[in-house]
Amino acid sequence: MQLDYASIRQTLDFLLYDWLEVEALSRHARYAGHDRQTYGAVLDMCERLAADKFEPFNRLVDQQEPHFDGQQLHLPDCTPAACAAYAESGMLAASHDYEVGGMQLPCVVDMAANSMVSAASIALKAYSMLTAANAGLLMAHGTPAQQKAFALPQLQGRFFGTMNLSEPQAGSSLSDITTRAVPDGADHADDPLGPRYRLRGRKMWISGGEHAMGEDIVHLVLAKVPDDSGQLPAGVGGISLFIVPKILVDTEGRVTGERNDIALAGLNHKLGYRGTVNTLLHYGEQGGAIGYRVGALGAGLQCMFHMMNEARIQVGLGATMLGYAGYLQSRDYARQRPQGRPVAAGQKVVKNAQQPQVPIAEHADVKRMLLAQKCYAEGALALQLYCAKLVDTKRAGEPQQADAAQLLLQVLTPIAKSWPSQWCQEGNSLAIQVLGGYGYTRDYAVEQHWRDNRLNMIHEGTHGIQALDLLGRKLRMDGGAAWALLQAEIAQTVAAARTVSACAPWADRLATATQALQAATDAAWSSGNAQLALANATAYMTAFGHVTLAWLWLDVAVKAHAGMAAADAGQQAFLQGKLDCARYFYAYELPLVQAWLAPVMAGEGLFLEVEGRGF
Amino acid sequence: MQLDYASIRQTLDFLLYDWLEVEALSRHARYAGHDRQTYGAVLDMCERLAADKFEPFNRLVDQQEPHFDGQQLHLPDCTPAACAAYAESGMLAASHDYEVGGMQLPCVVDMAANSMVSAASIALKAYSMLTAANAGLLMAHGTPAQQKAFALPQLQGRFFGTMNLSEPQAGSSLSDITTRAVPDGADHADDPLGPRYRLRGRKMWISGGEHAMGEDIVHLVLAKVPDDSGQLPAGVGGISLFIVPKILVDTEGRVTGERNDIALAGLNHKLGYRGTVNTLLHYGEQGGAIGYRVGALGAGLQCMFHMMNEARIQVGLGATMLGYAGYLQSRDYARQRPQGRPVAAGQKVVKNAQQPQVPIAEHADVKRMLLAQKCYAEGALALQLYCAKLVDTKRAGEPQQADAAQLLLQVLTPIAKSWPSQWCQEGNSLAIQVLGGYGYTRDYAVEQHWRDNRLNMIHEGTHGIQALDLLGRKLRMDGGAAWALLQAEIAQTVAAARTVSACAPWADRLATATQALQAATDAAWSSGNAQLALANATAYMTAFGHVTLAWLWLDVAVKAHAGMAAADAGQQAFLQGKLDCARYFYAYELPLVQAWLAPVMAGEGLFLEVEGRGF
Repeated sequence: MQLDYASIRQTLDFLLYDWLEVEALSRHARYAGHDRQTYGAVLDMCERLAADKFEPFNRLVDQQEPHFDGQQLHLPDCTPAACAAYAESGMLAASHDYEVGGMQLPCVVDMAANSMVSAASIALKAYSMLTAANAGLLMAHGTPAQQKAFALPQLQGRFFGTMNLSEPQAGSSLSDITTRAVPDGADHADDPLGPRYRLRGRKMWISGGEHAMGEDIVHLVLAKVPDDSGQLPAGVGGISLFIVPKILVDTEGRVTGERNDIALAGLNHKLGYRGTVNTLLHYGEQGGAIGYRVGALGAGLQCMFHMMNEARIQVGLGATMLGYAGYLQSRDYARQRPQGRPVAAGQKVVKNAQQPQVPIAEHADVKRMLLAQKCYAEGALALQLYCAKLVDTKRAGEPQQADAAQLLLQVLTPIAKSWPSQWCQEGNSLAIQVLGGYGYTRDYAVEQHWRDNRLNMIHEGTHGIQALDLLGRKLRMDGGAAWALLQAEIAQTVAAARTVSACAPWADRLATATQALQAATDAAWSSGNAQLALANATAYMTAFGHVTLAWLWLDVAVKAHAGMAAADAGQQAFLQGKLDCARYFYAYELPLVQAWLAPVMAGEGLFLEVEGRGF
Repeated sequence: MQLDYASIRQTLDFLLYDWLEVEALSRHARYAGHDRQTYGAVLDMCERLAADKFEPFNRLVDQQEPHFDGQQLHLPDCTPAACAAYAESGMLAASHDYEVGGMQLPCVVDMAANSMVSAASIALKAYSMLTAANAGLLMAHGTPAQQKAFALPQLQGRFFGTMNLSEPQAGSSLSDITTRAVPDGADHADDPLGPRYRLRGRKMWISGGEHAMGEDIVHLVLAKVPDDSGQLPAGVGGISLFIVPKILVDTEGRVTGERNDIALAGLNHKLGYRGTVNTLLHYGEQGGAIGYRVGALGAGLQCMFHMMNEARIQVGLGATMLGYAGYLQSRDYARQRPQGRPVAAGQKVVKNAQQPQVPIAEHADVKRMLLAQKCYAEGALALQLYCAKLVDTKRAGEPQQADAAQLLLQVLTPIAKSWPSQWCQEGNSLAIQVLGGYGYTRDYAVEQHWRDNRLNMIHEGTHGIQALDLLGRKLRMDGGAAWALLQAEIAQTVAAARTVSACAPWADRLATATQALQAATDAAWSSGNAQLALANATAYMTAFGHVTLAWLWLDVAVKAHAGMAAADAGQQAFLQGKLDCARYFYAYELPLVQAWLAPVMAGEGLFLEVEGRGF
């Protein structure tokens, strides 16, 4: 059955206009050309795109995996069709400047619109997402010539883009990459497209690494430039970034027809996300692939990570929308599937077999599973949109606002990436459970959501790495300034919620949980030993994530409650649904925070004491 | 890489001989012929069977799904080979009497031996598991003639068996099945094989429902016998049980060659467990399938559920061993995969890129994921074996012991089924995470474990139904006698642990958690309203499961500690691993109990108040 886009739209509209008040963004010069009408047009367009070009093919791209016949990589026809439709929509360049063909769309609206495409087919969307991210990086860090030759053709949908970070032996530990970039002689040091190098090495997990779509594929490749003795510099400070096109291009961004020295060495056959081709690429088997350096020597990771915050929010958004899709599919199934009868009121557990069966959505435990999914998916969506709006404020706001937005964004990014990856995946499991045996078959979409979503705790920095980033860096940077700022935001919500009787008990619990998190933060670092502090980083992050979501749900609930009085019956039911989510979260989820923090508070050192080889 | 069976065996031996003291079972007449040597021989045999005939084909049966060419159902050759090897081993009849060709093996040893086969390939093993369960039911409820014609050929491996409960429109709600069984005329009322009927109806999710292995397939089918007006009786009390062979047999258990009226209507294409063919069967399309009633009219579900306790423990064991397999695979991977460096001791988060990389098993967060998996899998294995030993005591013990064992078994069965289904599946997710990107590919076994295990919260009574069974029936039956008995067992462990300084703090926490569970049990039923009590049944069961596992881990830890003094260094490291698990469980898992019980204590009625159609 088709996704209920109207349901997503209703929540998107509420979050964008009522909760985040994005119309006010128009006061910034950058977004002055926009209003609710232009935003609505973009949302409408993406909804149609999702429903027509993506969702109908989501199962097909799972079944017809990319395959290589020795000469060419084959994708089902729907893949180029979906990518072309996406490019034609203008969404690749949506957030970019008018002068490069963009819409100067706020990131928050861009993400909201894209969310429906993600829900429709995350694997089909990945090609466009990677291309936009690649172009975005070049627009931020490339020279004007690089932007013209490599970024604009991507924004126009003529070229595709990839990111090449991992190698077979180096995934989480990028400091150990061994791909080598050697200057391509003195002649090419001042190539108009940038300092020219020859690259040799292997790059693993490259999504979109090979296909016949578009005119070219622009690979952004991390590599190390050897020192005079031929040694690769140690550590991440030795990493530089290179543009390595599949087919060489001229300064006008036209393909020359000359193939670069890049070979497809293998396809990865995945558990999910099968519609996105994932490759092992060998660079320089014939002598050296031509690459043009982006940014300064040794600044490769810095350039890459400049974009990483948005990329991680994108991952979080993908995880969120898989969760949302599973929620909607299982909700709609539960409403029409008759099975069993509710327990009668009274002392004894009695069901009357003479009564007709009820839709399973009427059973308490199914309601539990639906509410949990809704709470995970809509809460995560609120988080992503909140972060996206911070990106807009950072980009277009007054300096002081922009700095604050940047700080909040830094501390929230690990949560925006990790929380939906974990909990919307749990939601996808609940969706399977709602459908029962049918959910376990490939006749329904929910099992694919579950498989697809499992990637999100792995790529773009694993779950554990997000936790180290949160507790080891983000909580401590600038003397804890980001965390202090987040606490101030939470305190504002608490204060507002205390004035609303329906929300006041939740406000008290959020205040308590935030204090507990503060105490745990102190406790974690009280030993003065980073090893011990970080040994429980994942437990800490799990708790931090739930406190963050409790805050957002409370903030959303206050807004929903405020809208009740003027709402009609249909809108009231919708708003009541948000209040029900908040109630669910505070009753069933927030209590877990104390449990996760227990080992942090206790300074539990089990993972340091136990010998890894002794399990 | 091959599973580390030696590692499983070491834990099995410890649990069987040191913890459960199964050698003492030989004091019962039924098991007098056994000792540690005969048990060891069975364990050895099953280990070889698992390593040679099952594990090497586990991926293959996932890839080469059963398919039907319109005439015949095809399975890869390894499937009949594995089933034949299992039958030849004598394990189908292992727990049955000597006089029918069995070994009179205690259930606990039978399960321990089978656990290795489950770890090797759950999907390949399902055929034999179903056949043994079918025969076991007939040995308990069939007439001597039915046993001779249908059960013995299964125990000998000549026939295969299935269980037919669900229908497309009736899964959890068996009272709504519509398969109809009509007496096959007065002539056949006293057929030597039992009262003969004609069946018409559709049966869904039938594992092993069609294939060309063996001489015959014996279907055990739930159906309703219409009353004089042709109406099917309402409720589960109207359900009877029938033997419906694929090919008719004579009284000697020889196939006559005459096909019964059963048609394969479709194959289910599943997320996992793909090596087990799963079917939709149509009975009686040509007029009526011949079936012989087992047990009394209307006693069908009673007969089926007599075996259900053991079947649910079997499901739990399957889930457990998938978790165990994932643990071993990810542990062995983590020991040999170099990546990154540990954080140095000290205030700052510093890593020295000049140092060589370490195996990922040395990273704190990877240790967390390995310890959690070990704790889930070995804890669940302890639970399954504990329950299996209760089956033995019930079968062979003195009446008073047997009654107590039966009570404990009843209250623990929902946990034995649900806890491993949930937590060993979570463990399988952690195994993927340990392997990172590689874990997400189909080149490693861990993704298949994760998919295979997802079924276990669905079949043989869903997770939610286990929770209703626990809180709605098992906790209340006989005035709470089973729960009181379990509390007495827990109290014994607490008392023993208090005398061991290493375990005493855990003893206190277990006592507190058990009291909290008692308080929550009272709170759940304090409203006098079954609807409200059961609305939080799943949260209650989750807490109950963790308390149960905390109890078992403490009991195991006490035994491990006691063994330390006389152990050599290798054995000490092994025993320390059990104590580390207990420490992990008490530090990271047990605190969750209070959080899960919070809505139970609060009498939270959200799932009753919220309108299912209003999400």
